[in-house]
Amino acid sequence: MEFFKVKTVEETYQLIKQQIKPILPIVKKSLYEALHFVLAEDIYIKENVPNFRRSAVDGYAVKASDTFGTSESMPGFLTVTGEVKMGKTPPCDLSFGEAMYVPTGGMVPEASDSIVMVEHCEDLNGLLNVFKQIAPGENVISIGEDLVEGEILLTKGTRLRPQELGALASQGIIEVSVYRKPVVGYISTGDEIVPIETVKPALGEIRDMNGMTIGAMVMEWGYEFIHDGIVQDDEQELAKRSKALLEKVDCLILSGGSSVGTKDYSVNVIESLGKPGVFVHGISIKPGKPTILAVADGKPIIGLPGHPASAMVIFQLFARPILNEIQGYSQEEKQLAKARITKNIPSAPGRTDYIRVRLFQELGEWYAEPIFGKSSLISTFVKSEGLVEVPAPNEGVQKGDQVLVRLFNKG
Amino acid sequence: MEFFKVKTVEETYQLIKQQIKPILPIVKKSLYEALHFVLAEDIYIKENVPNFRRSAVDGYAVKASDTFGTSESMPGFLTVTGEVKMGKTPPCDLSFGEAMYVPTGGMVPEASDSIVMVEHCEDLNGLLNVFKQIAPGENVISIGEDLVEGEILLTKGTRLRPQELGALASQGIIEVSVYRKPVVGYISTGDEIVPIETVKPALGEIRDMNGMTIGAMVMEWGYEFIHDGIVQDDEQELAKRSKALLEKVDCLILSGGSSVGTKDYSVNVIESLGKPGVFVHGISIKPGKPTILAVADGKPIIGLPGHPASAMVIFQLFARPILNEIQGYSQEEKQLAKARITKNIPSAPGRTDYIRVRLFQELGEWYAEPIFGKSSLISTFVKSEGLVEVPAPNEGVQKGDQVLVRLFNKG
Repeated sequence: MEFFKVKTVEETYQLIKQQIKPILPIVKKSLYEALHFVLAEDIYIKENVPNFRRSAVDGYAVKASDTFGTSESMPGFLTVTGEVKMGKTPPCDLSFGEAMYVPTGGMVPEASDSIVMVEHCEDLNGLLNVFKQIAPGENVISIGEDLVEGEILLTKGTRLRPQELGALASQGIIEVSVYRKPVVGYISTGDEIVPIETVKPALGEIRDMNGMTIGAMVMEWGYEFIHDGIVQDDEQELAKRSKALLEKVDCLILSGGSSVGTKDYSVNVIESLGKPGVFVHGISIKPGKPTILAVADGKPIIGLPGHPASAMVIFQLFARPILNEIQGYSQEEKQLAKARITKNIPSAPGRTDYIRVRLFQELGEWYAEPIFGKSSLISTFVKSEGLVEVPAPNEGVQKGDQVLVRLFNKG
Repeated sequence: MEFFKVKTVEETYQLIKQQIKPILPIVKKSLYEALHFVLAEDIYIKENVPNFRRSAVDGYAVKASDTFGTSESMPGFLTVTGEVKMGKTPPCDLSFGEAMYVPTGGMVPEASDSIVMVEHCEDLNGLLNVFKQIAPGENVISIGEDLVEGEILLTKGTRLRPQELGALASQGIIEVSVYRKPVVGYISTGDEIVPIETVKPALGEIRDMNGMTIGAMVMEWGYEFIHDGIVQDDEQELAKRSKALLEKVDCLILSGGSSVGTKDYSVNVIESLGKPGVFVHGISIKPGKPTILAVADGKPIIGLPGHPASAMVIFQLFARPILNEIQGYSQEEKQLAKARITKNIPSAPGRTDYIRVRLFQELGEWYAEPIFGKSSLISTFVKSEGLVEVPAPNEGVQKGDQVLVRLFNKG
């Protein structure tokens, strides 16, 4: 195996983009099941929305010119010829000097070009007093104002949020081609790790916290999670179990055993699972340096550091884009939450540090209070609401500096 | 029924806090099912984490005083007496002049107070050359450094994120008391609304977009959604169907029919469902003014405006805190994403406007580009990634101003 130079965070993201490709099969989903799936086809607009002129308000359809010059003190008078019913075409068309009641969302008669709001007129037994002049087009939603027939609605690679599903529903499109969501397999390694159900761990043992935090993050993103249990420090057993699990899943996570200590055989196991193999072994990041990223026959494999906080930071930063890429979604996460840091944070040049922070507001300004602690401490995450990056070229941040915060999911 | 004055956004939030109380039953959930549930009990730390002194690195357990004065050019020499195995107690204790190998996470021998990293020493057949002096406590995770026995771990009302589940797992707590998640019932009203499956709606008809967008938002938040179909403009039928659905759900949403037009009977229907009834009828907000909020025998009811974009804005702003309150969770959503607005946004004094925005980055600065359009337009949401509030007392925002962005879920 070749010798690996520790990668910067930026290099790691670039390598992920180069190495990880969409591998998930395309499946059909009804709109009701398609939330957060990534679209595997371009979708064109086949019907104008709306496909008839709708009123934006409760009011009277008129010809705008009939209202010109009218005001509170000098009302115009129009003859009310009827009423448009919701969901129906108007009972008749409109001539000069006429008005017709149209409720919000109702169809506007063809010869009418605008709607006078009910607030600006008074219907006196069929004689409409208009107190305000309006412009042609006012309060009318024109044909195709929302979606124009023939234009593209959504492109392949779009993640379907509620609004995209709404737009599809408006078209009567009730089934879409999407990439199947990934199934993520997970193994905890280490002689010291015992199941969380263990009532009294022996001295030196520790419960499998990472299996819970990593599993919950996978579920939070909407993916299936298979916890395949704990493997002792045994290279052959780990290789066997990893190989068997990798066949069943789209992405494999191994936790623990990625430190550079003497028992570091997990990189060998990962390298043995398929080609091209390991492409990142060590990242200049704190916490989380001993991270392994690999691809085996298209399937990504992530070797996480064993410390709980390191594992969460690395999973948040790198597993999410990796799982996005295999679904054909490669948009970057937007990270524009800003706050002022409340303490000086030194950083080692050449390394990207991620500080956990708690957020609070004072006099309209947001502050990020660093939660310090070793990378083994889950409590630092419990007290935090996001991560602040202290970039490598920088030599730390000063108290009061504005920093970008990568927010955790609120649930 | 009493006459309602239109409420400000701030008054609306205050009324929600006053009127909506936790109503959901407390249930037991295993940790594996408990993600995003709200805790219904205080949980205390019953075991120190860690409950033994762990090494934070791969290295040699020593007495720090044995390393004092050592350096690259003047190494210290210690006798290696053995190795600590992961998950096991040390084979023996440590005396002055001795060192013992400890892997990351391994148990530190009792008489040792610090760990020399492997990078800073060399083991020559049992003779350890130490090249760097270390301080007492260095690289040792002390007992209770993460969680201290007897302290409170999580308070009632905490939403369980992956990190909270990890902390519970560390304690061997595998079942928790939580508030059941809400079941949300939904009815679309309006003679013009037809099911999304309709192949060719008649002129004047429109597919039920809101049923899809609102349903997807409810599912995105992790709650069960029951779409009870479309009810025509018929007060008696709406009252009957609303009453029957409300019995089966924890929160009822009616979409459409909340405009102040002549057919506005939905406020009567909502008022008839139970006591104390309607507490907000109209909010000084754009879009979404004709919004109704009510409580019937503890269960919240939301009358949404019919326009798709209005319905989404109102649901995002008010349904989320309402659904949080009935689960006993009343933390405010933190809204600290900042960007510079790219256009002048005028606003009417006395009204809070919500502008949909697209976000982009340029030279390290984030910009929010307003997506304008009437409140009936779903396309404005499809092009957007968040909402910008133009507060009421303000008279708009100027191009280049920093604004706060309420980000949509990314999925």
